[in-house]
Amino acid sequence: MFKKSYLLSPGPTPIPAGVLAAAAEPIIHHRTAEFSKIFMETTEGLKYVFGTKEDVYILTSSGTGGMEASVANLCSPGDQVLTINAGKFGERWGHLCKAYGVVYKDIVLPWGQNYPKESLEAELKANPAIKVVFATLSETSAGQIFDIQGFGEVVSKTPAILVVDGISGLGATPCPMDEWNVDVIVAGSQKSLMIPPGLAYVALSPKAWKLVEISKCPKFYFDLKKARQTLEKQTTPWTPGITLIIQQRKALEIIREMGLEKLMTHHRLLAEATRAGVQALGLELLAEIPGNILTAVKTPAGIDGSKLVKIMQNKYLAYIAGAQDPEKGKFFRIAHLGYMGGFDVITALTALEMTLADLGYQVEPGVAVKAAELILRENWI
Amino acid sequence: MFKKSYLLSPGPTPIPAGVLAAAAEPIIHHRTAEFSKIFMETTEGLKYVFGTKEDVYILTSSGTGGMEASVANLCSPGDQVLTINAGKFGERWGHLCKAYGVVYKDIVLPWGQNYPKESLEAELKANPAIKVVFATLSETSAGQIFDIQGFGEVVSKTPAILVVDGISGLGATPCPMDEWNVDVIVAGSQKSLMIPPGLAYVALSPKAWKLVEISKCPKFYFDLKKARQTLEKQTTPWTPGITLIIQQRKALEIIREMGLEKLMTHHRLLAEATRAGVQALGLELLAEIPGNILTAVKTPAGIDGSKLVKIMQNKYLAYIAGAQDPEKGKFFRIAHLGYMGGFDVITALTALEMTLADLGYQVEPGVAVKAAELILRENWI
Repeated sequence: MFKKSYLLSPGPTPIPAGVLAAAAEPIIHHRTAEFSKIFMETTEGLKYVFGTKEDVYILTSSGTGGMEASVANLCSPGDQVLTINAGKFGERWGHLCKAYGVVYKDIVLPWGQNYPKESLEAELKANPAIKVVFATLSETSAGQIFDIQGFGEVVSKTPAILVVDGISGLGATPCPMDEWNVDVIVAGSQKSLMIPPGLAYVALSPKAWKLVEISKCPKFYFDLKKARQTLEKQTTPWTPGITLIIQQRKALEIIREMGLEKLMTHHRLLAEATRAGVQALGLELLAEIPGNILTAVKTPAGIDGSKLVKIMQNKYLAYIAGAQDPEKGKFFRIAHLGYMGGFDVITALTALEMTLADLGYQVEPGVAVKAAELILRENWI
Repeated sequence: MFKKSYLLSPGPTPIPAGVLAAAAEPIIHHRTAEFSKIFMETTEGLKYVFGTKEDVYILTSSGTGGMEASVANLCSPGDQVLTINAGKFGERWGHLCKAYGVVYKDIVLPWGQNYPKESLEAELKANPAIKVVFATLSETSAGQIFDIQGFGEVVSKTPAILVVDGISGLGATPCPMDEWNVDVIVAGSQKSLMIPPGLAYVALSPKAWKLVEISKCPKFYFDLKKARQTLEKQTTPWTPGITLIIQQRKALEIIREMGLEKLMTHHRLLAEATRAGVQALGLELLAEIPGNILTAVKTPAGIDGSKLVKIMQNKYLAYIAGAQDPEKGKFFRIAHLGYMGGFDVITALTALEMTLADLGYQVEPGVAVKAAELILRENWI
């Protein structure tokens, strides 16, 4: 059979045809009025997605570059910070702090476990020296989302600032920056923003900028003060990812036309359908608060989780994600993020049913599809 | 939700990404060595698909142009021919003959009904003056395929020639031209050949060329003698569809790499899965010998067939085809033709289940998917 491949991973995500085609438009120079116009329109579109009146800076890097920019611009060596670590990406905040000599208290949680705002409140009360709380909107490694609204309430009452890795979450699950008192959000281009990887986005509150002014960490490429200075001149400090920005403007047009609220509803529906499907198969979810971005599913007893992912990826070309080390094999992750539709969920669940059957797991074909189909049909607009 | 559209029609069919992208390659001039090379390679690839050692002529037209070229080049006004008419496309042979003053006996069959080779044999015996038999490999309007092998056996024993409209069928269902004694096959680019519409392909046996030599029908653009003369010089008589030919070469590479036999198996499997799915829903097929190209399904009692197609197309963006006049509403057609995969069948069946439910038809969700899934899984390579 012709094998078509399906990207069901939490980044990169599928890209609308018109956005893909935009990469083939003639390349233009970035120090031109033509590009400045595109650049500023992209910035405006990002402000809409971020839910902020602050400027959003476009960095030519992957999301991790945006995380590094946050640490390097907000902290000084020896600063005390808190990192909420419930997976690979929460853990990365700690790795970055370590690299820059920032003293971090790592709140290590089992993957998939929630961290209530009350715990954060107690932590900040116990450690008033903490200058920054590094959190994650959607922990991609575990399919868990966090109560950023609650964190914002708690942190905004203290001198500390709240920095959120919104890379996989922004656009798919609510996180209005200004309304929720989030000081810094980092986002990435290859998630709900529906373009290829290569751009990171960062916005900062006035409270965060005060820390930038006194930060002593070394930085150059990711210097946000330089980014601020050049944005005033409608340009970037370094050569930007020109075609990616052209694509991002196009994808943002789609998002604005659809509206942010509908974009959230879209992700919620796909998530609900996916969860209903896997639960109909008798499988369990990993996360306490599963997000709309991806569904992490525990590998059923007696099944080799790595094999399951391999069959999904290599036989059915349904490119779901496995669990990352050290949880490898214990669960798998089906994304429903970005430019996906109801039938992508159906494809994922059908491939999962077939894979489970291949592995000898007792499965009634069509059961997951049925559960998802009912939700999709009821909500199909 | 993001709505992705799915082309489930019997042409145009989905196009592989690399083939789509080839249309964006720099346009080159057609009177160059560079284009001649592409043109000749495309011709060679088409010979492979046609199963012939004869040359295949590339006409810049849709499939109907290839049909007209056959009539205009093979016949003379007043010639007696036979047209086998079991649907819109079989009927078209008669319309073409009429336009050129060719005397045709139209064998009119109910849509979906077979025409046995014995009937053709009897017909030719009764009318020895018949010079050409115009038949159809896959009658797209009804999802019916015909016994071209049997027709070839019968016609090859007579002075008549067999001309086959293979537009939707070639590449999806067997029809090896030389082996089956088919004198002329017409094909189109937008079916199993996996490129956009715009090119028609025609190959002729030596027996057919003898008729071309004495044909008195007027022709200019579709003059196959001109095409033969220019092919010797590795070019075309008129400006060809350059980018389409570039795309066709690329798609033929995919087909050659896969192999023709596997391409047939692919279509057969998707067809079997689709038929099993719709039959599991209690629906009936239209065709006596359903082909591997598309499945025509009778509209169940109490359901408005036109509404069904509209919901599939406009709500679920699953672009199946309705029935054409005068059968409109009586059945609908799900194609599994060209660059489709197993999950496209699942998408079609899920959309059909949801549409039937929308129309109040008693349907157990997942039932069609289950039936198809079992076949797909067993045969997934």
